[in-house]
Amino acid sequence: MITVNDATEILNRFSLDRRTYVELKDSLGRVLAENIISDIDVPSFNRSDMDGYAVRQQDLDGRQFKLVGEMHAGDNLNINLGKGECSWVATGANIPDEANLVIPVENTEKIGDDVIVYEPGKEPHISERGCDIKQGETVLKMSCIINDRNIGILAALGIQNVPVYDTPTVAIISTGDELDKINDVNSMTLSAIVTQSGGSPVFMGTVTDKISHVKQKITEASKYDIIITSGGISSGKKDLMPIIVSELGGVLFHRVQMRPGMPMLAGMINEKPILCMPGNVTSCLVCGHVFLPPIIRRMAHLPYMGMGGVRRARLSEEAVSEYGMRRYLPVKLVDGFAHPTFKGSSLITSIGHADGIVVIREEETLVEGEVKVQML
Amino acid sequence: MITVNDATEILNRFSLDRRTYVELKDSLGRVLAENIISDIDVPSFNRSDMDGYAVRQQDLDGRQFKLVGEMHAGDNLNINLGKGECSWVATGANIPDEANLVIPVENTEKIGDDVIVYEPGKEPHISERGCDIKQGETVLKMSCIINDRNIGILAALGIQNVPVYDTPTVAIISTGDELDKINDVNSMTLSAIVTQSGGSPVFMGTVTDKISHVKQKITEASKYDIIITSGGISSGKKDLMPIIVSELGGVLFHRVQMRPGMPMLAGMINEKPILCMPGNVTSCLVCGHVFLPPIIRRMAHLPYMGMGGVRRARLSEEAVSEYGMRRYLPVKLVDGFAHPTFKGSSLITSIGHADGIVVIREEETLVEGEVKVQML
Repeated sequence: MITVNDATEILNRFSLDRRTYVELKDSLGRVLAENIISDIDVPSFNRSDMDGYAVRQQDLDGRQFKLVGEMHAGDNLNINLGKGECSWVATGANIPDEANLVIPVENTEKIGDDVIVYEPGKEPHISERGCDIKQGETVLKMSCIINDRNIGILAALGIQNVPVYDTPTVAIISTGDELDKINDVNSMTLSAIVTQSGGSPVFMGTVTDKISHVKQKITEASKYDIIITSGGISSGKKDLMPIIVSELGGVLFHRVQMRPGMPMLAGMINEKPILCMPGNVTSCLVCGHVFLPPIIRRMAHLPYMGMGGVRRARLSEEAVSEYGMRRYLPVKLVDGFAHPTFKGSSLITSIGHADGIVVIREEETLVEGEVKVQML
Repeated sequence: MITVNDATEILNRFSLDRRTYVELKDSLGRVLAENIISDIDVPSFNRSDMDGYAVRQQDLDGRQFKLVGEMHAGDNLNINLGKGECSWVATGANIPDEANLVIPVENTEKIGDDVIVYEPGKEPHISERGCDIKQGETVLKMSCIINDRNIGILAALGIQNVPVYDTPTVAIISTGDELDKINDVNSMTLSAIVTQSGGSPVFMGTVTDKISHVKQKITEASKYDIIITSGGISSGKKDLMPIIVSELGGVLFHRVQMRPGMPMLAGMINEKPILCMPGNVTSCLVCGHVFLPPIIRRMAHLPYMGMGGVRRARLSEEAVSEYGMRRYLPVKLVDGFAHPTFKGSSLITSIGHADGIVVIREEETLVEGEVKVQML
């Protein structure tokens, strides 16, 4: 038996560095795999910030301008401004090369082909070429988790395919002859944990407790980045996983100082990690929350800061734990009290309605009063 | 012009009550649309919690039992136990009807066809039929957001299709003649906000500033639950949206006491809300964060508690605001300082690297020192 910390440490050896491209519209929440360096200026031209008239500042000793053109956003006309001439420019429009000032329309009056300027204003109202993003500028650093604002930057650069770290694929297998009679809970809960950790679950289906069948299924699954099984790791006649994992690759650890989840097994097959969870539904869920997020998030290049946030609550009853074992006590929070929900590791309602887990450390045997609840 | 609060209030009138079914494996994070009442007992039989021998408690004055059967998890044999008889039962196996106690294998010895019991143990080691979930029990309440533990409960009941509230579909249109020359930023950022708010974005593409084209596109879009446009709401010649919205349905509000985002317009077409965002990229992003999450989450039956969490930071420089306008000041957090990133509403880098927003309320004109940052 090893401690939870040692088991986690062993799983820390696995990493993944596969990159791919996703369409910009699908890049939200993905992890950028390269620095993004702009190869254009944004804006790519001197752009008007206002509806108004573009003029040459040096002509502003006069107050009357001859209107010689009209530029709307998107227009790409070639308007040349001479002395005392102006062009209509809409917000977002390209400014004629010679102009260096836009006079807001509300400060002017148009009389025939002439524009009278009442008040030139204090600002030029021009976004100069490159003032948003300069060509050659590093706009996003690799490893950032792409958010909506980052997507705005990538869109402004015209990037349609974004280099990201690939999501680890996680094959999920449930073992056990009983699974044609009872419902397969573990594949579903493990898949949910995989998804919320940032992995892509692949359902491999269920397999009966027959060595050749299980071996074949696991061999198929070993093309994915992580293999997860549930069931078959205790000491019963049909608990074949320790033998199978050892024959197909090697066992990294078997039995962990934790409750529930003590039979937990992990190994390596074709350089891929295989995590074999207990078949009992609540043990499986607890092991899923303890062992899957760290390995999946590391492989996805996402940060892992432990389970969800921590809340403080008062235990509604004292909880005991065996010395040397780390106990994961599911609790439901009601009015500042943490009510233990655990009834037995084979019962889904032991954790089904829990909001969080009270972790009782190996050296503690009794916990009461105020506790920290790791939110699930 | 109306206040942000009044504008939000007006949009609060829109709701959606469409339900659908999703496969259990796809139900993570969805909102349950019905109470779930179990129509089975879980477990559906008296189930052994241990590998061991099932006996009749009343026979335990003797210590020697005759082995008459073997039940593994998934077996459905008909084993009848007579006086002084026992059956092997694996963890998870069905217990013969007459048995009411499982003696763990480690407390026994098997000699030929006989089993010697050294220590019967203190517990029955049986999960009785229905002890996890009882037929008729309400196991999950409608409106709950389905998490991995809830999925475990649904799986245990054998529910494959889960009744959930449908995700609102959100049509996104960018308007502007310039969009064949410059990159369409707004569709991408709005789509990201829609997705993270719990809606399903539908890209309707871009459309030029021609009334008939825009009208046709919006009419197409009005089959979705929400229509979002960007651009065309200021006072320029090509700012057609106020006219179009009023002709196709009606304007609910136009111009909001906020910066950036003041030109914001909303209306109703075919009973559907249409939200017309400013074309300036940072104004559009800010309006997206202010107006989209509340309406989308309400329609998705998800709770809305304001923008992301709040952090306290020190403004790196004082910020001014116009009296009567609510100012949304994007900031980047570095070492406890909030650095304003705003340069101009047409520049994506005004918000592209921001972590949060300092909201300067309508009655404030100057903010400095410690501030609350609404995380994005």
